[in-house]
Amino acid sequence: MAPTLVTSPAGHAGAGDRFARVSDHIDDLGYARLDTGRAARTGDPEVVYGAGKTPAQVVEILTRLHAAHPDRAVLATRLSAASREAVLAQLPDAVLDEVAGAATLGPLPPSRGLVTIVSAGTSDAPVAAEAALTARVYGAGVHRVNDVGVAGLHRVLAARDDLARADCLVVVAGMEGALPSVVGGLTGVPLVAVPTSVGYGASFGGLAALLGMLNSCAPGVTVVNIDNGYGAGVFAARVARNARPHEPGDRE
Amino acid sequence: MAPTLVTSPAGHAGAGDRFARVSDHIDDLGYARLDTGRAARTGDPEVVYGAGKTPAQVVEILTRLHAAHPDRAVLATRLSAASREAVLAQLPDAVLDEVAGAATLGPLPPSRGLVTIVSAGTSDAPVAAEAALTARVYGAGVHRVNDVGVAGLHRVLAARDDLARADCLVVVAGMEGALPSVVGGLTGVPLVAVPTSVGYGASFGGLAALLGMLNSCAPGVTVVNIDNGYGAGVFAARVARNARPHEPGDRE
Amino acid sequence: MAPTLVTSPAGHAGAGDRFARVSDHIDDLGYARLDTGRAARTGDPEVVYGAGKTPAQVVEILTRLHAAHPDRAVLATRLSAASREAVLAQLPDAVLDEVAGAATLGPLPPSRGLVTIVSAGTSDAPVAAEAALTARVYGAGVHRVNDVGVAGLHRVLAARDDLARADCLVVVAGMEGALPSVVGGLTGVPLVAVPTSVGYGASFGGLAALLGMLNSCAPGVTVVNIDNGYGAGVFAARVARNARPHEPGDRE
Amino acid sequence: MAPTLVTSPAGHAGAGDRFARVSDHIDDLGYARLDTGRAARTGDPEVVYGAGKTPAQVVEILTRLHAAHPDRAVLATRLSAASREAVLAQLPDAVLDEVAGAATLGPLPPSRGLVTIVSAGTSDAPVAAEAALTARVYGAGVHRVNDVGVAGLHRVLAARDDLARADCLVVVAGMEGALPSVVGGLTGVPLVAVPTSVGYGASFGGLAALLGMLNSCAPGVTVVNIDNGYGAGVFAARVARNARPHEPGDRE
Amino acid sequence: MAPTLVTSPAGHAGAGDRFARVSDHIDDLGYARLDTGRAARTGDPEVVYGAGKTPAQVVEILTRLHAAHPDRAVLATRLSAASREAVLAQLPDAVLDEVAGAATLGPLPPSRGLVTIVSAGTSDAPVAAEAALTARVYGAGVHRVNDVGVAGLHRVLAARDDLARADCLVVVAGMEGALPSVVGGLTGVPLVAVPTSVGYGASFGGLAALLGMLNSCAPGVTVVNIDNGYGAGVFAARVARNARPHEPGDRE
Amino acid sequence: MAPTLVTSPAGHAGAGDRFARVSDHIDDLGYARLDTGRAARTGDPEVVYGAGKTPAQVVEILTRLHAAHPDRAVLATRLSAASREAVLAQLPDAVLDEVAGAATLGPLPPSRGLVTIVSAGTSDAPVAAEAALTARVYGAGVHRVNDVGVAGLHRVLAARDDLARADCLVVVAGMEGALPSVVGGLTGVPLVAVPTSVGYGASFGGLAALLGMLNSCAPGVTVVNIDNGYGAGVFAARVARNARPHEPGDRE
Amino acid sequence: MAPTLVTSPAGHAGAGDRFARVSDHIDDLGYARLDTGRAARTGDPEVVYGAGKTPAQVVEILTRLHAAHPDRAVLATRLSAASREAVLAQLPDAVLDEVAGAATLGPLPPSRGLVTIVSAGTSDAPVAAEAALTARVYGAGVHRVNDVGVAGLHRVLAARDDLARADCLVVVAGMEGALPSVVGGLTGVPLVAVPTSVGYGASFGGLAALLGMLNSCAPGVTVVNIDNGYGAGVFAARVARNARPHEPGDRE
Amino acid sequence: MAPTLVTSPAGHAGAGDRFARVSDHIDDLGYARLDTGRAARTGDPEVVYGAGKTPAQVVEILTRLHAAHPDRAVLATRLSAASREAVLAQLPDAVLDEVAGAATLGPLPPSRGLVTIVSAGTSDAPVAAEAALTARVYGAGVHRVNDVGVAGLHRVLAARDDLARADCLVVVAGMEGALPSVVGGLTGVPLVAVPTSVGYGASFGGLAALLGMLNSCAPGVTVVNIDNGYGAGVFAARVARNARPHEPGDRE
Repeated sequence: MAPTLVTSPAGHAGAGDRFARVSDHIDDLGYARLDTGRAARTGDPEVVYGAGKTPAQVVEILTRLHAAHPDRAVLATRLSAASREAVLAQLPDAVLDEVAGAATLGPLPPSRGLVTIVSAGTSDAPVAAEAALTARVYGAGVHRVNDVGVAGLHRVLAARDDLARADCLVVVAGMEGALPSVVGGLTGVPLVAVPTSVGYGASFGGLAALLGMLNSCAPGVTVVNIDNGYGAGVFAARVARNARPHEPGDRE
Repeated sequence: MAPTLVTSPAGHAGAGDRFARVSDHIDDLGYARLDTGRAARTGDPEVVYGAGKTPAQVVEILTRLHAAHPDRAVLATRLSAASREAVLAQLPDAVLDEVAGAATLGPLPPSRGLVTIVSAGTSDAPVAAEAALTARVYGAGVHRVNDVGVAGLHRVLAARDDLARADCLVVVAGMEGALPSVVGGLTGVPLVAVPTSVGYGASFGGLAALLGMLNSCAPGVTVVNIDNGYGAGVFAARVARNARPHEPGDRE
Repeated sequence: MAPTLVTSPAGHAGAGDRFARVSDHIDDLGYARLDTGRAARTGDPEVVYGAGKTPAQVVEILTRLHAAHPDRAVLATRLSAASREAVLAQLPDAVLDEVAGAATLGPLPPSRGLVTIVSAGTSDAPVAAEAALTARVYGAGVHRVNDVGVAGLHRVLAARDDLARADCLVVVAGMEGALPSVVGGLTGVPLVAVPTSVGYGASFGGLAALLGMLNSCAPGVTVVNIDNGYGAGVFAARVARNARPHEPGDRE
Repeated sequence: MAPTLVTSPAGHAGAGDRFARVSDHIDDLGYARLDTGRAARTGDPEVVYGAGKTPAQVVEILTRLHAAHPDRAVLATRLSAASREAVLAQLPDAVLDEVAGAATLGPLPPSRGLVTIVSAGTSDAPVAAEAALTARVYGAGVHRVNDVGVAGLHRVLAARDDLARADCLVVVAGMEGALPSVVGGLTGVPLVAVPTSVGYGASFGGLAALLGMLNSCAPGVTVVNIDNGYGAGVFAARVARNARPHEPGDRE
Repeated sequence: MAPTLVTSPAGHAGAGDRFARVSDHIDDLGYARLDTGRAARTGDPEVVYGAGKTPAQVVEILTRLHAAHPDRAVLATRLSAASREAVLAQLPDAVLDEVAGAATLGPLPPSRGLVTIVSAGTSDAPVAAEAALTARVYGAGVHRVNDVGVAGLHRVLAARDDLARADCLVVVAGMEGALPSVVGGLTGVPLVAVPTSVGYGASFGGLAALLGMLNSCAPGVTVVNIDNGYGAGVFAARVARNARPHEPGDRE
Repeated sequence: MAPTLVTSPAGHAGAGDRFARVSDHIDDLGYARLDTGRAARTGDPEVVYGAGKTPAQVVEILTRLHAAHPDRAVLATRLSAASREAVLAQLPDAVLDEVAGAATLGPLPPSRGLVTIVSAGTSDAPVAAEAALTARVYGAGVHRVNDVGVAGLHRVLAARDDLARADCLVVVAGMEGALPSVVGGLTGVPLVAVPTSVGYGASFGGLAALLGMLNSCAPGVTVVNIDNGYGAGVFAARVARNARPHEPGDRE
Repeated sequence: MAPTLVTSPAGHAGAGDRFARVSDHIDDLGYARLDTGRAARTGDPEVVYGAGKTPAQVVEILTRLHAAHPDRAVLATRLSAASREAVLAQLPDAVLDEVAGAATLGPLPPSRGLVTIVSAGTSDAPVAAEAALTARVYGAGVHRVNDVGVAGLHRVLAARDDLARADCLVVVAGMEGALPSVVGGLTGVPLVAVPTSVGYGASFGGLAALLGMLNSCAPGVTVVNIDNGYGAGVFAARVARNARPHEPGDRE
Repeated sequence: MAPTLVTSPAGHAGAGDRFARVSDHIDDLGYARLDTGRAARTGDPEVVYGAGKTPAQVVEILTRLHAAHPDRAVLATRLSAASREAVLAQLPDAVLDEVAGAATLGPLPPSRGLVTIVSAGTSDAPVAAEAALTARVYGAGVHRVNDVGVAGLHRVLAARDDLARADCLVVVAGMEGALPSVVGGLTGVPLVAVPTSVGYGASFGGLAALLGMLNSCAPGVTVVNIDNGYGAGVFAARVARNARPHEPGDRE
């Protein structure tokens, strides 16, 4: 029987893979270590962190991981344009998300619970898309609310019911990073804020948004690293898939 | 019938109170605005942010809020030594947590779900205690694992089963802030990291720990502001009290 | 005839006084240089920057300036507790604003135009009060909207008509500094944002709010230094007192 | 009747567009959301933020917006070289400002009030030009005073009458950012300072100029983000077009 | 004959004293090392850095140094209030400069060349006074021009001839630190800029002034550490006392 | 037989104590956890981190640890003045190092290898003394070379043979932190640099020295945290006590 | 007889070469100064810092240095791709380490003592490889333990015996830089931590890892500059080659 | 008669040119303003700041300035490779300094006084060369001492007599920036330190060197901006050309 393999994509901003090294089921491709049995242990999928990998490496790892886990989608993130083309050309069963710069291979798991991704501007879309795809591959249902800027309160207010239905919110914003405070003031749903590097001058590559979110005046706001849609998606999926089904009136 | 009142403790690092201002049930004490009906709306308790308030103000607000919500504990945080003494002397039914610098008045709600608070050193105890008390008052069950330093792996490993049982983890650490990475590598439980200002020299008042946690190599780690045990407790309680009861084998 | 005198309170965060040095009408008290004729030149009042001055110095300068400008209020800002007491005791005609830590001596000018001061939390009150008093002494009418937190959208929306009536807005907020973005999205009125040093941990003494405001996604937002209510008041008064009277429908 | 459309150029440093999302008149091009009716609401023009958009997108949005607002100029900023060429080739009625990297399509509004743009060096010219064009499209008259360096006081002094005539000043400077202090000491006109990223070594991409301007010893100075000529232009135009006509002697 | 002694005031911001350790003529008081012969080597005076020293230590070191160098003034800087009182009471021949927080004991050297100290505000006076006294004790003539703010150009221009007469300029300013650029634009005299910690909010303890001065658009500007009047005085004296006497027309 | 005890002084900048928590021999005093058997495991002594502990706590822990390890000195660091007095009064056998702010109780171990501590100024003495005492208690011989400033090369050169004899160098300096580069250029001995918080203005509490040392142009220089004499002493002792005895000519 | 030559590769992060300039045996190639006799003086090898040098320069310097030191390997670090190709093509006896971006020419010295290099992720491999090769060329034996992430404790624990066997540890990690704390808690071996620039967003090019390591809660941890594998290798080799041979039981 | 012209090279780090704008003799080339008569006013030469200018612009400005000042060299700095080629090809009388990236056209002035430029490493050579050429064109004699690293004290000491002969020292260093402290400890000559951006990791583009120099423990050290060889050269020339001729024994 072919051994199952799990990659250890070193250096991922949310390195689920390093955890994999604990395992005894490790094989070495030279440029990556593969491990099996992790899905059984954690319920989390395998992930290939694509940054710094050649298209051929991305294709090979996806292929091996899919062979090892044919019944559970494998996720590849931060794919370069060349890697995206290689995936399209060589892995016809893969599904590519161009905005997220990510791909999946294999059937998505049934969804459990609901993660709602709120984003401020179209420039924040890649990070929001990465968070959404990640949460979905990690087993949560996903709903998106786009283009909800702080400077346009009516759209935020109009989405209030959508927000309250979620088991976990992911709020993505650059510039001053004020959206999580506004959203967090409207609901009691756990909220993960993702600062993006969208901005100019004194945004300092996302630092202004990061500080803004850490200092949010709304309670129940937590923060991940700049542009780390993947980490927010993992966290939110874990919250959502363990959530009780909503009952009428039991949450705000 | 006396009007029920809800404080709006302006300036709280996690200003649940500001949200309260939306309400129509607002009365004004001059130094604080009180609002009623919030508990009905959100399921969250009333909170008095004690920093910058006189002992007399703390006692008065606690008294009014307790009268308005006799069946649900009110929480007062960041109490000065003088405020703690005043609470002890004038509110015999209040329960004071000296380590957290916080007090409650009124019966705690039934607990739902489990938040586990992990802390690295005894200097981190006040922040961990604030997180623990907050999570409890917000309706979650709380378990604490203290003095689990990164430099002592055996104690971390020994607590592994405790960690896996939680619905949400709060990990409190100062200095290099490495504990969340280690804990996050052991479980798939959602994890909120709290950097503390404990440290010396180039810790820069908690900045080193904050940056360390934001850059954690373990996925599923989110972060709150430095020393913000309150915010972490609110978030974790919201996750935990909405969590499904554990079933054998359904979580790592 | 006694010479008229104008102080040159060196070191003011908004050193209107240094401008005074251009004048030929300068006298020297040793600890401060007084100048006359400035009011005639600029229409701005005389200002004593109280920080670092003894109570006796504050009283003496106020007295001299009032003698030189008996028909126009003189403003003293950043008064210590001791200076405030001295002003109360020795200058019975002075009007003390305890929240702003400031005093005026002499009749206020007629108001022209309207400055509306919006503040987020009660901790921001001293800065908002300094801005309000300054704008009034500089000749504008002033309206205040307090306790309008980002996390409570309804109160912001309820104040929308108030905001639109202003000739210039001053929005004061600490923590994440998001309020100017929200307010700026509601109106086309020129808006000056004032970050305050209210906050914890990674607020870094107002830096988070300052960066947030500089990166505001709402256009027409400008920013002054942290806690610089005086500077915002000066600027807003200059805008307001030169504004055309409102005509029905001519502004948003 | 053709629907009027308004873009929502997400991510603009001064995102007037996000405000647009409040509107009900929104259409979606996929890469941008268009909204109508904003001009009626605010008196502000439509703006296309060109950074990150393809030349084809810029041309399409300008075309649609111009069709929706044939009697009011639409502004496109931060145009790449390719976008500028496309505008020149495909929109013969557009007017391109090469220095500002911006274009307008449609008739400029009548000017009301006067904005004077002062710049320190020729390297600051693009930011000054963006501010000038923006203020003009937003409805103000514009006058420019170029190459007025701090190290050459005579030129500043020679321009003193020009400065005093303005309803709002925009002062653009890089390096140490001292020009606003000098100009602010000469007049009582409201002054918006724009730090530019012009500089070397410890200018840190405009941070030195930004800090200098925030700490200006002249009162009545407010600041926008680094290189944000657009934001300064919007603000100044709003001040100027609401200003009373000058009367002899009523302002310094 | 008693050995001559030279202190080694460890930790001085401009530790002329450390140089002294090269000498063979070193004696040890326990809390300070004294050295003789330095004056012969460098022409510089002996200096006691008073910060962190007890009044008794200051008095003892001054006494010993004066005994060793009876014909050349010894300088003591950064004296606490207690040390100043002790000097006054126990060293009747010492001359105390209260503003500079410094004292001299022994006859001043003949002056050679001219250092002109320009300061922006009265809050900058202590640093300017330290620079002035230091330059004088190091052998230069000193002229002071006070209260020359950037926001008041006429006073700067009025001092132009004074500035041009100097062999070296020391320009002291806090807040935005713009004065050196203005002064440096008026003359070709070598100019040392001293940022002071005077300022508020985003002045960050003098950082804004320091960055401003380092980025000065006027050539021939050099900078010393924040509040380091001593270092500027040493440098300027060295330049001035080696300067050729002015001849008519040979310098701007 | 009485159980041996080991403290766990939480929060130490070099928390040897946290390691202790791995042990099974742990007892709890409430404010500190004591552990036995560590000395046997590591050869390192027990350490009490005195900051934040009451005098009574310091005395009690020292007493217990000494009882548990009567034949090996226990070290207490960062003792407040009150704790130092209590140690003097109640532990007559303790040896207090006033400069280091530290004390030992029990016999010092035999020394093995040589650590040489070089310090730049007398203000650096407390950090150098802490490093020296720590290295000695950890089992190394210690030699000190004081007052070797960068600005006095002859003293550094005179100490060259002393430097070369060491098994490990600890170089302590504040301000610009240049001494390690100079010393590191003279020898091939492993060198640990300790930046101190001694300095003014733009030293930013030791940051300038820290950066200088990290960027040293001399190879073989490593760095510890600001003022962390304890950490440097531990490291250097570990290097020195494992070093081969010198043989003629085998090291530079 | 041909003169022996030693390069002085100015600008090396660990500029062993600058030391070489002390020598009298210096020859000048125009772009580099060569020196002989250093090996005799220090026992350290010659090093060519390849950054900024042309392939031809690298080949020429390596050739000359090898001729001068035919019996001791010369090291060239930071080689560009072009330089690596030139070395391969023109110096058939050179040994190229592609991962480290470095090459050696000449026989390696006998190894003395043991340096163990521990690295966290595959992205850290180049820095770890540079440290390993450097330590080996400097005369120490080297053992590597790769892919030991903080989030996978079992692999760290499994390597515990390997760690304890070393005379000096070099621990290489990016992101949060937590690995040195974990490793330092397991052994008493001297440990040099190397932060790498691997990371995203708020890692700020290695700053987060650097601060984490400086604040490590494990004692006996020292730190070098970001990505400075060379400096760590030099330091560790000096420690290791001077270490006593292990005896059973004499170290932890 | 052809008008004499002076450029106004906007944006120069040491913008001698802005000063030029004071003049009445200004002509405008569109991309630069030319001014005549400055040399007569200040004794300083005309300077073209080449960064951001096309080769054709550089050639044209040099040609015009040389025509206006045929008897005094014009300086062009920061020339791109293309501009250097154009100068070589089209201005056969120009003298190009390839290392400095600068050129002169016209006869150098007689030299007066002596500036000695000391540099640490070959990577610092471009900045040192810019300083040297600038000082020479500004009328001082120049002597260079290269490759004097802090880690090699003998070379510094060997140059001691050279250092003492100077009227002003310019010391150029990157990395930790320690060289000015060492040199400043050896002489009493006025010393201008120039930090360079040479370095790695935590050198942060020259910030480490800048902070090191500002905190130098040697008195009489002043600092210019990172890589600002031009500014240091201007300053040093002004000092040197005004210096008295050395007399035996009158300086250290």
